[in-house]
Amino acid sequence: MTDPIELRKPYLLFVGAAASPIDAKTAAGVAYWRPENCRAQLRLDENAVDLGLPDMTVKDAAAAGCATFVIGLAPVGAYLPDSWVSLCVEVLEAGMDIASGLHVRVGSVPEIAAAVASSGSRVFDVREPPPNLPCGNGRRRAGKRLLTVGTDCCVGKMFSALAIDAELRRRGVNSTFRATGQTGILIQGSGLAIDAVVSDFLSGSVEVLAPGNDADHWDVIEGQGSLYHPAYAAVSLGLLHGAQADALVLCHELGRTAIDGDYQDYPIPDLEEVIALNLQVARRTNKNAALVGLSVNSSNLGEDEALTAMAELENALSVPVVDPVRTGVAKLVDQLK
Amino acid sequence: MTDPIELRKPYLLFVGAAASPIDAKTAAGVAYWRPENCRAQLRLDENAVDLGLPDMTVKDAAAAGCATFVIGLAPVGAYLPDSWVSLCVEVLEAGMDIASGLHVRVGSVPEIAAAVASSGSRVFDVREPPPNLPCGNGRRRAGKRLLTVGTDCCVGKMFSALAIDAELRRRGVNSTFRATGQTGILIQGSGLAIDAVVSDFLSGSVEVLAPGNDADHWDVIEGQGSLYHPAYAAVSLGLLHGAQADALVLCHELGRTAIDGDYQDYPIPDLEEVIALNLQVARRTNKNAALVGLSVNSSNLGEDEALTAMAELENALSVPVVDPVRTGVAKLVDQLK
Repeated sequence: MTDPIELRKPYLLFVGAAASPIDAKTAAGVAYWRPENCRAQLRLDENAVDLGLPDMTVKDAAAAGCATFVIGLAPVGAYLPDSWVSLCVEVLEAGMDIASGLHVRVGSVPEIAAAVASSGSRVFDVREPPPNLPCGNGRRRAGKRLLTVGTDCCVGKMFSALAIDAELRRRGVNSTFRATGQTGILIQGSGLAIDAVVSDFLSGSVEVLAPGNDADHWDVIEGQGSLYHPAYAAVSLGLLHGAQADALVLCHELGRTAIDGDYQDYPIPDLEEVIALNLQVARRTNKNAALVGLSVNSSNLGEDEALTAMAELENALSVPVVDPVRTGVAKLVDQLK
Repeated sequence: MTDPIELRKPYLLFVGAAASPIDAKTAAGVAYWRPENCRAQLRLDENAVDLGLPDMTVKDAAAAGCATFVIGLAPVGAYLPDSWVSLCVEVLEAGMDIASGLHVRVGSVPEIAAAVASSGSRVFDVREPPPNLPCGNGRRRAGKRLLTVGTDCCVGKMFSALAIDAELRRRGVNSTFRATGQTGILIQGSGLAIDAVVSDFLSGSVEVLAPGNDADHWDVIEGQGSLYHPAYAAVSLGLLHGAQADALVLCHELGRTAIDGDYQDYPIPDLEEVIALNLQVARRTNKNAALVGLSVNSSNLGEDEALTAMAELENALSVPVVDPVRTGVAKLVDQLK
């Protein structure tokens, strides 16, 4: 169940009966960021969200060359519905692999495990880290790395990293998106769920995820959490140390003043302080680490208000500020040599 | 195998054929810090180190009321020797539990697992964290907490915490040592191996280990690693956030200038910087966190040299500096209200 993740392409995206892209946001993310890997969609209801891909049955998708069935939404409740289980068995028997980012381990469902054994197809439960991760060694390695860091969870670290990687490749620069969470892993087809790694191996796992590379190659690493998050800061620190990042991009939601969810007692500090701490920590393993700029989520603001706020931040912090949705990330990528 | 750890007392300490206290340092640590819990020792060789306890066979120890057989040394090699396996089976059949801090999981050896099943005795593999740990909630909790932090691994964080806890109790203060590593857990008879916890649950596990308590009660929490360690800093940060420490004690080996082992490229920064970063991080979850003083390991220096160096540090940093072995920790405990 814990092969290093490398999904076979193309995909059949499963969207179940999800009524909106939000309900099937993983499937929507894969279709948005990697359309070239998506061959078809499988919907359980004709009113389910349409990702703009051909609808196919499992049998048709297998015949059309689909190699992996990507479960791109979460079921209601903690368990896999019976209808999904029989569908998964059918998928495996048709010769396709399954990739899932669900909490529940698809490969541990007895009927599915039996189908894996009899079919030789594989299940990738992408929240499961690979076995035998090493401790960090901290040795300088070749290649360039960019890490997205945040003022909080869910402020756009994955989206920003995907956008920066895409812009680098558009410009002909060698770049690889390195996924650290389940959605990113399903989008990229590879990666490592860092928050599921045993603490001792945190920075070591980042060294494995983003290994030494050509001098002109960029790894664009998806950040997690925030150094200021009372639950998840350790994950962020392991990423900062393991990444040996040359470039940091700070992600922030405009208008968010406290850590989201049950952490309202924790204000988000001044961005200057957030930047200084992230740089101090990053420079422990790469003394040349520098802030490239900010990538903000301004979706709570109107266009004029958003652009004004971003201009003010640029003036205050003296670095480019982008919103990857409104403005794209070109101004950040301009900073990468 | 993952019951919350609470060892039954008293102990039969197993020292195998270890020729020196260094080779049986866990057993020696338990005997040194918790003599009241140690009833007997079991040595496989008459030349093995003598912890000053009565020698007993398993049968005699069980008759004398020993409740837990503590494996207080590591075997040569990665596996449990056959002679140890048969001894463990005998222990379980005699009605005693086993506690082990070994990498190899004693409870997973088939003969031992069978003896657990048939005897009803238990095996505590103390490197195994309990299941179902929560994410941190960051909510302020009652009681006082002290955390030992370090410039590196192996600089005396466990020893200092044990000494501070002992001094508090000697003065009649309510205090509990909270162990976060295998040796500390075997000494205290309870605790949680923090470096084996999945990253997402790091600070949450510290909230579980050192829960809210009486307003005048001190939890003295064993620190791990260092914020400056390229492999293990994340563990240190999870501890700092989860502990909500009122008091920090910085542990340092005098004369050590770089991170030990394969990390010689990583200098230990100025102590002022180390203190500032630890306080900044600690204050995220407890704005009143303060540095109580330094606890140094000066064993590489002669007495005069050590005392001079400590006096210089006191002047430079304006906080008490102790060596728990040379001077005791009274000057630190004087600072705790």
